[in-house]
Amino acid sequence: MPGIRVRGYAHRLQTRRKAKRLGVFDRVDASLADCVTGADLVILATPLSTFPAIFEAMASHVPAGCLVTDVGSTKVWPHRWARVLPRGVTYIGSHPMAGSEQQGLEYARDDLFEGAVTIITCRGSSPPAAVARIEAFWRGLGCRTRIMTPAAHDRAVAAISHVPHAAATALVNATRTEHLGCAGKGFLDTSRVASGPANVWCDIFQTNPDPVIRGIDRLVGELEKIKKAVAAGHRGRLEQLLDRGRTRRAKLIQDMLNKKELLK
Amino acid sequence: MPGIRVRGYAHRLQTRRKAKRLGVFDRVDASLADCVTGADLVILATPLSTFPAIFEAMASHVPAGCLVTDVGSTKVWPHRWARVLPRGVTYIGSHPMAGSEQQGLEYARDDLFEGAVTIITCRGSSPPAAVARIEAFWRGLGCRTRIMTPAAHDRAVAAISHVPHAAATALVNATRTEHLGCAGKGFLDTSRVASGPANVWCDIFQTNPDPVIRGIDRLVGELEKIKKAVAAGHRGRLEQLLDRGRTRRAKLIQDMLNKKELLK
Repeated sequence: MPGIRVRGYAHRLQTRRKAKRLGVFDRVDASLADCVTGADLVILATPLSTFPAIFEAMASHVPAGCLVTDVGSTKVWPHRWARVLPRGVTYIGSHPMAGSEQQGLEYARDDLFEGAVTIITCRGSSPPAAVARIEAFWRGLGCRTRIMTPAAHDRAVAAISHVPHAAATALVNATRTEHLGCAGKGFLDTSRVASGPANVWCDIFQTNPDPVIRGIDRLVGELEKIKKAVAAGHRGRLEQLLDRGRTRRAKLIQDMLNKKELLK
Repeated sequence: MPGIRVRGYAHRLQTRRKAKRLGVFDRVDASLADCVTGADLVILATPLSTFPAIFEAMASHVPAGCLVTDVGSTKVWPHRWARVLPRGVTYIGSHPMAGSEQQGLEYARDDLFEGAVTIITCRGSSPPAAVARIEAFWRGLGCRTRIMTPAAHDRAVAAISHVPHAAATALVNATRTEHLGCAGKGFLDTSRVASGPANVWCDIFQTNPDPVIRGIDRLVGELEKIKKAVAAGHRGRLEQLLDRGRTRRAKLIQDMLNKKELLK
C-alpha cells in the first residue's frame, strides 16, 4: 500500500530467507529491536507462548504512540502480558477468525481476510481512538469487526474453536487404524482442524483452560444424551436431538449468509 | 448406457414428477411391483426403516436371477430383512462412501462416485458370481470396492461415520446461541455432517446401536484425556494427544492420496 512500509521480524534465518524470497515484507529484520523501532503498528503473529518474551524484548524499543496487537487465539493472558509495554504504547487484541490448519508463509493468501470476522478485544481503560484505529486496520483488509472484553472473547472461541479442535483430535484418536482405512469426506471434514500444529494448540488450550474444560463437559453431556437415546431405542428423543443440531446449524449458515460472512 | 434401461420407483407423486422433469430415469413407476418386474438389478435408495416393507412388497414380483442391493448405511439389519426375498433372488449389500449432507434428486451429480470407496457386504452363503456382478457395477461407476461381512461393515462405519455424526450434532447442540454467532470455517467443517436429515440418521443409529454406543464411549474417553491434561496443565501429555491426532490424520490423508481416494 502506498505510504506504508511493512517490516517483518522472524527468529529463524530460514523463515527470514523464505519471507525475502516470497516478497512478503518490504524489509525483513533479524533483530526484534530494529524491527519495532519507529513502528506505528506492531502485530504479533507467533505462538501465544512466545508473547511474554516478545513483549519484554520490544518494551524498550517500541516508540510512544505505537499500537501493539496480535493474531493469537486467546486474549485474557495476552492482555496481562502486555502490561510490560511502556506508557504511551497501547495493546489491543485482535483475533481474525480466518486461516486454516496449514502453517507457514507459503500458505499466505491475499484474500484470507475477505469477509472474515475479526474480534477486537479491549478493556474499559483502552483508549477509544486506539480501538478505532485497529478496527479501521482490519476493515481495510476486508474484515467485519466485533469488539469484546478479553474474557468474553475467550469464552466464545472456546465454544466455537477450541472445543471443536478437542472434538476433532479426540475423534481421530478414538478411531482404530483398521477403521480409518474406510474414512471418507465426512470423516475428513469433521476431523480437519485436528491437523493444526500441536505446539500452537497446546498454547491455546493452556491459556484458556476453564472455558475449554467447561466446553468439553458440555460436549460430553450432549454425546451422552445421544448415546442414552440410542441405548434406550428412544426414537422420538433421538430424532429431537438430531433435528436440533440440523436446525441450529441451518440457522447459523443462514445468519452467516445474511451477514455476508459466507458466500453462496 | 446403451442396452440398459433404468427405471425408478418413488412413493410420492411429487418425487416422481421431479424425477421425470430432471430425466434421471428412462421410466418412472408409481407401482413398486411394476418397477421390479423383469429387473436384473434392484437398488434400494430409501431410508433404512422403509426396507422391510419394500422387501416384503417386491418379494412376489422380483424375478428369479435378479440381484437386489441397496445404498443404506448399515448392513446387519438389511441382510436379515432381505430373507423375505424368494429363492433365486440374491441380496448383496452396498455402501458407496459418497454423498453429502444434502438430500433430494436436485443434488444428483454425475461424478458422485468417482474415486469413492463402495463397501460390499455378503455372507459366507452369498453366491460369488453375485458378489462379482455387484462389484463390477460399482467399479463401472468409478468406485473402488471393498468386501466385508455385514457386522464388520457396521463396526467400521460406526467409527468413521456414525460417531463423527454424533460428535457433530453434539458439538452444535453444546454451543450456546450467543457463541454460534462467532463461528467460522473450522466450526462449519467440524459440524457439517450434522446437517444430514434427522430421520435418515435416526434409522442409521437405531440399526447400529452397539457399535455406535461403544464408539461414543471411546470418543468421550479421548475427550476426557484432553480435558484432564488441560486441567492438570500437563503440557507434555496435551502435546502428545494433539500430536497423535495430527500425525494419524496426516497418515490417513497420505494413504487416501496413495490409493487415489483423494485428489491433490
